[in-house]
Amino acid sequence: SLIQKNDRLKINKTLTMDTLNPQVKAVEYAVRGPIVLKAGEIERYLEEGGTKPFSEVIKANIGDAHAMGQQPITFLRQVVALCTFPELMDSPSFPEDAKWRARRILQGCGGHSLGSYSASPGVECIRKDIAAYIEQRDEGVPSDWENIYLTTGASDGIMTILRLLVSGKDSSRTGVMIPIPQYPLYSAAISEMDAVQVNYYLDEDNCWALDINELHRAYQAAKQHCQPRVICIINPGNPTGQVQSKKCIEEVLHFAYEENLFVMSDEVYQDNVYAPDCQFHSFKKVLYEMGPEYFSSVELVSFHSTSKGYTGECGFRGGYMEVINMDPEVKAQLVKLLSVRLCPPLAGQAAMDVIVNPPQPEEHTFKQFHQEKSSVLGALAEKAKLTEQILNAVPGIKCNPVQGAMYAFPRIFIPPKAVEEAKALGMQPDMLYCLRLLEETGICVVPGSGFGQKDRTYHFRMTILPSIEKLNVLLGKVRDFHISFLKEYSGLE
Amino acid sequence: SLIQKNDRLKINKTLTMDTLNPQVKAVEYAVRGPIVLKAGEIERYLEEGGTKPFSEVIKANIGDAHAMGQQPITFLRQVVALCTFPELMDSPSFPEDAKWRARRILQGCGGHSLGSYSASPGVECIRKDIAAYIEQRDEGVPSDWENIYLTTGASDGIMTILRLLVSGKDSSRTGVMIPIPQYPLYSAAISEMDAVQVNYYLDEDNCWALDINELHRAYQAAKQHCQPRVICIINPGNPTGQVQSKKCIEEVLHFAYEENLFVMSDEVYQDNVYAPDCQFHSFKKVLYEMGPEYFSSVELVSFHSTSKGYTGECGFRGGYMEVINMDPEVKAQLVKLLSVRLCPPLAGQAAMDVIVNPPQPEEHTFKQFHQEKSSVLGALAEKAKLTEQILNAVPGIKCNPVQGAMYAFPRIFIPPKAVEEAKALGMQPDMLYCLRLLEETGICVVPGSGFGQKDRTYHFRMTILPSIEKLNVLLGKVRDFHISFLKEYSGLE
Repeated sequence: SLIQKNDRLKINKTLTMDTLNPQVKAVEYAVRGPIVLKAGEIERYLEEGGTKPFSEVIKANIGDAHAMGQQPITFLRQVVALCTFPELMDSPSFPEDAKWRARRILQGCGGHSLGSYSASPGVECIRKDIAAYIEQRDEGVPSDWENIYLTTGASDGIMTILRLLVSGKDSSRTGVMIPIPQYPLYSAAISEMDAVQVNYYLDEDNCWALDINELHRAYQAAKQHCQPRVICIINPGNPTGQVQSKKCIEEVLHFAYEENLFVMSDEVYQDNVYAPDCQFHSFKKVLYEMGPEYFSSVELVSFHSTSKGYTGECGFRGGYMEVINMDPEVKAQLVKLLSVRLCPPLAGQAAMDVIVNPPQPEEHTFKQFHQEKSSVLGALAEKAKLTEQILNAVPGIKCNPVQGAMYAFPRIFIPPKAVEEAKALGMQPDMLYCLRLLEETGICVVPGSGFGQKDRTYHFRMTILPSIEKLNVLLGKVRDFHISFLKEYSGLE
Repeated sequence: SLIQKNDRLKINKTLTMDTLNPQVKAVEYAVRGPIVLKAGEIERYLEEGGTKPFSEVIKANIGDAHAMGQQPITFLRQVVALCTFPELMDSPSFPEDAKWRARRILQGCGGHSLGSYSASPGVECIRKDIAAYIEQRDEGVPSDWENIYLTTGASDGIMTILRLLVSGKDSSRTGVMIPIPQYPLYSAAISEMDAVQVNYYLDEDNCWALDINELHRAYQAAKQHCQPRVICIINPGNPTGQVQSKKCIEEVLHFAYEENLFVMSDEVYQDNVYAPDCQFHSFKKVLYEMGPEYFSSVELVSFHSTSKGYTGECGFRGGYMEVINMDPEVKAQLVKLLSVRLCPPLAGQAAMDVIVNPPQPEEHTFKQFHQEKSSVLGALAEKAKLTEQILNAVPGIKCNPVQGAMYAFPRIFIPPKAVEEAKALGMQPDMLYCLRLLEETGICVVPGSGFGQKDRTYHFRMTILPSIEKLNVLLGKVRDFHISFLKEYSGLE
């Protein structure tokens, strides 16, 4: 039948760029965008024996700790392996501390198996462990386990909450306030839902601090053409690495209270604070301390994840959100919406449980766990400092301190001639810069334009995740590239 | 600060039932709907010492095999445990067959860790294994690994593809053809995206077969008010359990070809065929055999999952889709959309790999694997038969043969007086029936109205997953309940 006469070949496809959902077309996601596709091409070219001025592509485009060589936390993996293959409960090479946690998790699973669906909000005992963890983290501020929803990574939770807030028919009237620079999940979700992105600019000259006057400005400007309903905050900042002060958080919450905004607080980097003068303050704790008229009214969702912190377990797609002051009827709708996708992956839920219920000082596993955790966080602090220092020594690069999270977002001077060349090529100047950096050094970083930035400023985001040795080499190459780029396009230096 | 004067209490919430996205409000998902919430309440009541005419709630509402006591396939769990905790590679208690698979999967992961993000379409070697599996399943029909996309369960893949096809602004003009009865993920997704649900009715009198004339009728009727662009098929059927004949599939594909419809083929039950005169035919293979003018043009996506088959690994949230004849530019858009959620969970990807790359006859692990697999599938076949037989012996219940999948969807006679009572209570008659069944016997099944059915017919869906012993008890209780229900409402028997 393969050689039937082909007399009526169907030419037109049903799904084409013309008929594709235009909201999907509008989505941009720089972290895995064109530059990363190019990096993949170069990798394949090298594998197939091609030659370049470098021997490997270093992907500093995404916060993917294990891919950069970070070792998993032994205890976490032991618990998840025990849950996966309970026959290991009999193995003497697994510690009792891990076994009782695995047993407890499995008790909460249907048929005591990680292969069952959980309730859509997650396994009950894991939700309880998370609530207990939050109470401890926030020094006694109460947390109700029924406000905890496990998620498939933080991205999933953020999309779900936005889906509730952005109304299909009215989408183009719903304003979502996001920081600029931002993590592009936010702009992608806003595009996909056809909502209105309301930018508030972080203050680069003030270490990327959030300025309350800028929030007011952005809000008032947006009111002219939409109804701002949500404010998104990323603390510690991605890509900017700043850690918000308690005073700043109070101001944001007061603003949200005054303007009736729903608050989405992306706190996935809560364990990644390096600057000695900085401290993570949860939005929830600050709200509590502002008094009951705030704590009983401001609608707040906080997001956390297994992917960051000291565990870096991105592949497990684990996370949770805590939902405060949500209308009970709306909460029922949230559960219904979650239930359509059945439940978050159970291995990710188990990983999340270990993060909120880690070995305690009196447990045998504590010492190794604590060593591994400190080693990861200590190295990150060192790499944050190193990155800032080396970048700031390069003429034409200015990098704010990496107070937290996993990225540097340096400002780069791009000579006018390079800006013109980029424009002629129809690309952003920092895209040209990053493509050249990739082609010449094998280093893959993401242009600032993918995160948003003030007009006529240019940046890139790089992770600080490579090993110290590799990071030193990488930063040295960035320096050399930048100097020669300046020379090429300005004839100076 | 907690006792500050509360002089300005904010009353109005930002997110209320009035401001909630109405498309979310419109979503219904019966499989985890009101009846299941009620079952949870009763479970808690029993746990707290309350008494009922039964001692436990039996949840036959959802295809959750492990929760019903099915044991995981040892080999699958060994591979996933090895991937999770690679120190186990040194353990003599894990078979070499499992170790080499785990090593191979980890080779494909960043940093050789399950904790890394994979590429958004999934780990490359797993995509290749899936393509090889499909070629073997379809007796040589070629499969390109670049057409394979791992998913977070099949639901995730189905939602993603619909998202491409349903345009935000034009959503209310996009028709999506679905079988009735259907699995409510489809109607839920259609509601959430505000597309138009175009029902084609399966023929209950003909063992739930798909009748091509009914497809034409539904299509022509829909053309009056929308543009049908997609046809969804579930084969083997959920909740109906029918297995489509090759001829029927040819007719559907020819129809899709003629009418330029995008075909979504939900084939998650492809390993669950019990009737001796039935066989699973993949839409792709049938399309191939129809000749190149079809095989090179009809846009087809087929979905599979780790959750069903003989593994029943729902909690891993694993699955894949194979995408045929999609416009290359649209495929790039699909990858972009997938990348916003980064990647499917790696443990689920690993589980999927074991399903498509199981132990071979020459491997040491084959015997145990084969025994476990046959035992699960053999028991399911037996339970399918048992369910049909016992239900058909009840006056007022008529159940088509369960040819495949995991459910019976019997038609139940509900006396007019009960129908009236339900209407007075503002509920569907089969909801009343299922609620009474739950209250009186502890058996949780889902009303047919949650799946769709012809007017004035009533059904429920129950899984055939409980153990033979439990299923016998369950079916006996259903029989007794039904007889007394008839008696109560009709005075007859």
